[in-house]
Amino acid sequence: MKALTLHPDRLLPASTAARPVARRLYEAVAKLPIISPHGHTDPRWFAEDQPFPNPTDLLLVPDHYLFRMLVSQGVSLDALGIPRADGTRAEVDPRAVWRLFAGHYHLFRATPSRTWLDWVLAEVFGVEVALDPDSADGIYDAIAEQLGGEAFRPRALFDRFGIEVLATTESPLDDLTHHAVIRDSDWGGGVITAYRPDPVVDPEFEGFHDNLALLGELAGEDTTTWSGYLAAHRRRRDFFRQAGATSTDHGHPSARTADLDDGEARALFDRVRSGPVSADEAELFRAQMLTEMARMSLDDGLVMQIHPGSFRNHSAGVFGRFGRDKGFDIPMRTDFVRDLKPLLDRFGLEPQLSIILFTLDETTYSRELAPLAGAYPVLKLGPAWWFHDSPEGMRRFRHQTTETAGFYNTVGFNDDTRAFLSIPARHDVARRIDAGFLAERVVEHLLDEDEALALIRALTYELPRAAYRLDTDAC
Amino acid sequence: MKALTLHPDRLLPASTAARPVARRLYEAVAKLPIISPHGHTDPRWFAEDQPFPNPTDLLLVPDHYLFRMLVSQGVSLDALGIPRADGTRAEVDPRAVWRLFAGHYHLFRATPSRTWLDWVLAEVFGVEVALDPDSADGIYDAIAEQLGGEAFRPRALFDRFGIEVLATTESPLDDLTHHAVIRDSDWGGGVITAYRPDPVVDPEFEGFHDNLALLGELAGEDTTTWSGYLAAHRRRRDFFRQAGATSTDHGHPSARTADLDDGEARALFDRVRSGPVSADEAELFRAQMLTEMARMSLDDGLVMQIHPGSFRNHSAGVFGRFGRDKGFDIPMRTDFVRDLKPLLDRFGLEPQLSIILFTLDETTYSRELAPLAGAYPVLKLGPAWWFHDSPEGMRRFRHQTTETAGFYNTVGFNDDTRAFLSIPARHDVARRIDAGFLAERVVEHLLDEDEALALIRALTYELPRAAYRLDTDAC
Amino acid sequence: MKALTLHPDRLLPASTAARPVARRLYEAVAKLPIISPHGHTDPRWFAEDQPFPNPTDLLLVPDHYLFRMLVSQGVSLDALGIPRADGTRAEVDPRAVWRLFAGHYHLFRATPSRTWLDWVLAEVFGVEVALDPDSADGIYDAIAEQLGGEAFRPRALFDRFGIEVLATTESPLDDLTHHAVIRDSDWGGGVITAYRPDPVVDPEFEGFHDNLALLGELAGEDTTTWSGYLAAHRRRRDFFRQAGATSTDHGHPSARTADLDDGEARALFDRVRSGPVSADEAELFRAQMLTEMARMSLDDGLVMQIHPGSFRNHSAGVFGRFGRDKGFDIPMRTDFVRDLKPLLDRFGLEPQLSIILFTLDETTYSRELAPLAGAYPVLKLGPAWWFHDSPEGMRRFRHQTTETAGFYNTVGFNDDTRAFLSIPARHDVARRIDAGFLAERVVEHLLDEDEALALIRALTYELPRAAYRLDTDAC
Repeated sequence: MKALTLHPDRLLPASTAARPVARRLYEAVAKLPIISPHGHTDPRWFAEDQPFPNPTDLLLVPDHYLFRMLVSQGVSLDALGIPRADGTRAEVDPRAVWRLFAGHYHLFRATPSRTWLDWVLAEVFGVEVALDPDSADGIYDAIAEQLGGEAFRPRALFDRFGIEVLATTESPLDDLTHHAVIRDSDWGGGVITAYRPDPVVDPEFEGFHDNLALLGELAGEDTTTWSGYLAAHRRRRDFFRQAGATSTDHGHPSARTADLDDGEARALFDRVRSGPVSADEAELFRAQMLTEMARMSLDDGLVMQIHPGSFRNHSAGVFGRFGRDKGFDIPMRTDFVRDLKPLLDRFGLEPQLSIILFTLDETTYSRELAPLAGAYPVLKLGPAWWFHDSPEGMRRFRHQTTETAGFYNTVGFNDDTRAFLSIPARHDVARRIDAGFLAERVVEHLLDEDEALALIRALTYELPRAAYRLDTDAC
Repeated sequence: MKALTLHPDRLLPASTAARPVARRLYEAVAKLPIISPHGHTDPRWFAEDQPFPNPTDLLLVPDHYLFRMLVSQGVSLDALGIPRADGTRAEVDPRAVWRLFAGHYHLFRATPSRTWLDWVLAEVFGVEVALDPDSADGIYDAIAEQLGGEAFRPRALFDRFGIEVLATTESPLDDLTHHAVIRDSDWGGGVITAYRPDPVVDPEFEGFHDNLALLGELAGEDTTTWSGYLAAHRRRRDFFRQAGATSTDHGHPSARTADLDDGEARALFDRVRSGPVSADEAELFRAQMLTEMARMSLDDGLVMQIHPGSFRNHSAGVFGRFGRDKGFDIPMRTDFVRDLKPLLDRFGLEPQLSIILFTLDETTYSRELAPLAGAYPVLKLGPAWWFHDSPEGMRRFRHQTTETAGFYNTVGFNDDTRAFLSIPARHDVARRIDAGFLAERVVEHLLDEDEALALIRALTYELPRAAYRLDTDAC
Repeated sequence: MKALTLHPDRLLPASTAARPVARRLYEAVAKLPIISPHGHTDPRWFAEDQPFPNPTDLLLVPDHYLFRMLVSQGVSLDALGIPRADGTRAEVDPRAVWRLFAGHYHLFRATPSRTWLDWVLAEVFGVEVALDPDSADGIYDAIAEQLGGEAFRPRALFDRFGIEVLATTESPLDDLTHHAVIRDSDWGGGVITAYRPDPVVDPEFEGFHDNLALLGELAGEDTTTWSGYLAAHRRRRDFFRQAGATSTDHGHPSARTADLDDGEARALFDRVRSGPVSADEAELFRAQMLTEMARMSLDDGLVMQIHPGSFRNHSAGVFGRFGRDKGFDIPMRTDFVRDLKPLLDRFGLEPQLSIILFTLDETTYSRELAPLAGAYPVLKLGPAWWFHDSPEGMRRFRHQTTETAGFYNTVGFNDDTRAFLSIPARHDVARRIDAGFLAERVVEHLLDEDEALALIRALTYELPRAAYRLDTDAC
C-alpha cells in the first residue's frame, strides 16, 4: 500500500526564491487559533456531544462536494445511500459505500476535496496509507474504532482543532435550543449563530407562507402586516444576538436590491403574502428585504453577508427525488454594479454599517467587487467562496482584488462548511495560499517581509475578528 | 540567416523545481499515438492520396488562423490569393504570397501559429533556418521539392505522424464517398467521420430549405413532416455510424436547448419548413434539435459534441466577398446554466448518454462548466477550443476546471484543425502543457509523481479513446 | 524609521531562469524617452510653469486612486479636504491631511498606488524613509521645500522625466489657450491635445444643450441642424489638429455603435436637441456619433480611442455632494462583438482608419478584443486601463491577448493619469512587466532573446509612436 504523507511545504510556491519566504510567513500563523465566522456545522453536535457515526456517514454522506464527483462519473445517489427527499434511504452497507468511494478516490486528484480529506485521514485519524481499494477496509476500521473514543467527540475535536469562534447558520424559525444548551454547559467552546432569513424572505422558498405564520408565532408579532413582519425580524434578530450572533446571511439568486417607498413596500408585501407571486415580484421582494436588513443592521449592529449567484437545485430530477444540497447548485453570472446601487444609494456611506460580499462569478472580482469595496465604506469582500474555496480559487481572488481593494477591504477566511472535521484543513490551505501570495510579492519587491508578516497575521486572525465584530461581543 | 531550432524543453515550466518533473512526464507520452477525435481535415486527401500543392496553398491559404493576422495589419485577402465567395480568386503568384507572408512572420511572435508552423518547417520539411524575407525563397523551394515525393503524400504523412484515429466532420448531405474509398483501400489508416447536422438543423444556414429536400432524398424519408425529418436524421446517423462515426457535432450560436412537447415541436417545424422564420424561432428550433439529437444518441450511442458561442462571419464585407471561414468568427458570451437546463432536465442523468461541451467564453470554465460537469453524469468538458487552443489557453482551462471537475470529466485533446501538417505539433503542445501543469502540482505536493504519470497517460491517450467511444467501435 | 528603497529588480520575475533575461530586456529600454499619448494632465501647468502647491494638494487631493481607498475605510471626503461640487471645501490643514494619509498608507500595500507614490517620494524628492505616521511630517517638509525650487516647476520636471510627447485631453468647448501658450513659448516640450467630444456627443452629459450652443459659437456653425452640428465637429477637429492633436477619445457607457441612414440620424438629432430624450435615444445617439467620428477620422486622420464600460458617479450621495471623479466610477460588463458591428460593417476594412479599443471588462480580452483586433485592420488594442493599469492587470492583458492578437495589434503603454509626477513611475512599471512577460516567453523557448529585445523596444517606443501617428505630425 502506498504511504499517505502530508508534505510540510505543500501548496507553498515551488520557486527557490519564494518558498523560504512563504515558509516563514506560514509558520508565523500556522498555529494561530481558528476564527470561523461563517459555516454550516450542526450545533446539535456541540450541544449533545455524542460520538459521530461510522466513517461513511461522517465523511461522505453529508458532503456533497464529495459525492457529486462520483455521481458525475455515473454512480447513483442511491448507491451511495444518500437520503431521499421523502425521508427514505436506499439500504446500503456503509462499509460497501466506503469501498465504492475508495475505488473512485482518484477522481479527486488535484482537487481541494482530496487535500482536505487526506488531512483528515492523516491528522485527525493518524492514517498512514493512501486511500484506495486495497486500503479501504483498514482505514474504515481504524476510523470507526477511534470514533467511539472520548477524544473524538465533537467538543474534544473542537478544542483540539484550536477553534476560537465557530458560527453556525440558522433560520429565524430556529429556536436556537442547541446554542442555549452549549451556552449553559460548562464547556467553553465559542459556538455562535448567524441570522439567515431566506425561508421567510424569499417568496419562492418551500413553505414560505407557513414560514411567515411560524415567524409571527415565534416573534409574537402579526406577520400578516408589513410593519408586523418587519417587527418580527427585529425581534428574532435580537434573539439571535443574544445567542451570540454578530452577523446575518443572505443567499439570494442575484445581488439585486431595491429601495421602495413605504407604500410600495407595503403593497408588495401584501401581494407576496397573499400569493401567488410572479418571479419578478419575488425578486423585487428579496431585493427590498436586503435594504430592510441593512436598515436593521444600522440599528442592531449585525454585519450583513450577501451570498448571491447560485442556481440552486439545477437538476429537476435530483431535486425531485433527493431534495436540496445534493451537489447540483450551479453558479450564475452576477451583476453587482447595477444590483447593489439602490441599497448603496440609501446606506452606502453609513459609517456604522458593514456588508460583506461574496460571489461565485469570479469575473466580478476585478471588474466590480474590488472597485466597489475600494470605494464604499460599507463594503468588504468575503473570501473566495464555495467552488472557489480552493488553492487556485484563492489565488485568483487575491490576484484580482488586491491591487484595487487592497488587503484591508477583505475579511480573512471563511470555511463555510458542514464538514466539521475538515475545518482545520481548510484554514490551513488558506494560510498557505496567503503565505505564498505574500511571499511572491516580497520576492518581486512589492512588499517588505515585515509588511508581509503583518499582513499574514491580519488575514489569518485580526481581519476576521474585526470584520465580524467578534472583538466587541462576548463570545 | 538565423537558425531555426526547436528547443527540447520548449513550453515546459522554466522553474528549476518543475522542469525536470515536467520533462519526465512529457517523455512518457511524447511518442504515444495521436488520437484526433475532432477535426476538419479533408477526407479526399486520404482517399486520393495525391501530392499536396505548393507551400502557399498547402500551409497558408486554407489556414485562416494565419492569414487573418496579416489582414489585421492591412494586407488584403486578395493580395494573399484567398478564394472568393464567387469561386474566383485574385491572380497571385504563390511564391510572391509566400514572400509576403515571410515578411510578416514577426506578427506571430509568441503565438501558437508560430509554434505550429515552426514545427512543420523543422520536423516535416527539415528546414534549418528561421522564416524571414531572406530565407523565404529557399524555404519555399525546399518544401516544394519535397511535396513531390512519395513520403509527403497524405497517407505517408498520416502514418509517419503516428495517428491512430483521425475524425473528419461531414454534413448529413455528404455521401461519405471518400471515407468509403479509404475503407475499401488496402491502407489501414483510421479515418472516421462525425455527424455535423448544422446545415439541416439551423434555419439560418445558407440553403436550408434546399438542404432539407436533399436530406429527404438521401435518407429516403419525407422531410416535409416532423416525423419524417427526424427519421431522416436517424437514417443518416446510421449511415455515418457505418462509416465509423462515433460522435455528432453541433456548432450553434448559443448553448440553448428546449424540450417542447410533440405538438409544439411539430408546429415549430412546420413554421421553420415553410419559412421565413424569425430569429427567435430559428433559435428555438436549434434548441429543440439539440434535445432531439440527445434522444437519438441515447438510442444509437453517438457521443454529442456542442460547440456554441461563435458569432460567425462577423464582417459583412468579408463574408459578402469571401464567404465563410475567413478569420472573422468572433466568440460571444455563452450561458450554459440556463441554456442547457431543458435538455439536462430531460436526459441529464441518463447513464448511456455522453455530451462533450466546448466553449469560447473562458469565464464559463470555473463558473458554469466545471460545476456542471462535476455533477451531471452525461456531461464532459472538451479541451480549450479554437482561440484558446494555445499554451496559455490550455493552462487557463486546467487551472479553472480541475479543482471542481477533476481530470476525469475532461476528454483529452482535440486538434480541431484543417491544417493537417500541424496536427502532431498541436498534440505535442497539449502534451507539454499538461506535463507542465501536472509537474507544478507535483512540486507543490498536491500530487505524487506516480499519479501525475497516470494522469498524463490518461489525458493523452486513454480519456480521448474512452470519451469518444473509440474502444468499442471497429476503427 | 524604516528605509525607503526601490529595489532595482522590482516587478521582474523572481525565478532564477527568467530574472536575468528580464533584467537585460528592461535595461535596454529603461532610459528610452516617454511617449504618453493619452492622459489627463492639466496643460495650464506647462503653459504657466508655476510651482506646484503643497504636498497634499499636489499628490493626494487630485488623485482619486488614492483618496478613495481612505474613504473605503471610513475616512470622509471632507476630512481629506476634497473640493465639493458647489465649489466650497472643508477647511482642513494640508499637513493634517498628509498625516491622516500617512496613517493609512498601509492600506496600499501591494497596490500600484503604493508603487507609484514610493517612486515619486524616492526618485523625484529624494525621500529616504518610508511614509508612515512617524515620518509624515519630515517628508511633508522635505517635499514642500523642494516644490519652491526651479527644478520642480512643471516644465523642468517634464524635461527631467524624459517625456518626448505628452497628450492632454480637451473637450471641443476648450479654446486650447494653454496649448497655444506652450506652442508660442521658447520651451520645446511636446505637449499636444486630444479631441474628447463627450460633452457635446452625450445627451446625458451635464449641460448638454448649453454645450451644443457653445459648440456652435466656437465653430461658427449652426448646431441646431444635424449638418451644422457635424460641420461644427469637423471645424473643431481641425482646430485641435492644429494644436497637435493626433487622436480623438470617446468615453461612453457602452461600446455601442449605430449606422443610421441620413434621415434617421437627422430625426434622432432633432429629438436629442429638443430633448428630453429617453435613455435608449441617448444611447443610440452616442452610438451613431461613434460612427460619425469614424467617418471624420477617415478624412482628417485622427486616430479614434474608445473607452467604454465605466458606470460613472455610481454613488448618488458622493456625486451630489462632491461631483465627478471622486473614486466612485465602477466598471461594467461590456459587449464589443455586437456593439461594434454596425461601425465595423461600415468602416472596418478601411486601410486609413485606426481605432484603439480599451476595456474595463477583462473578460473581453481573450473572448472578444483579441479576436477582433486579430482580424479587422482598423482595430488595435489599447493597454490595460484604469483599475487594470497595474502589474497584475498588465500581465493579464498580455497573457490573454498575445496568443490571438500578437504584440503588433497593441499600441504600447498609456499612463492615462492626471498625477503628473507619477508618469515616469507608471511607464517604468509597464516596461518592467513587459520585460518580465517577454523573458518568461524566452525561457519557455517561445521566443529568442533577440526577438524579445526587438519586441520590448517596439512596445516601449515604436508602437505608441506609430499607433498614435506621432511620426507623421510635427510634435
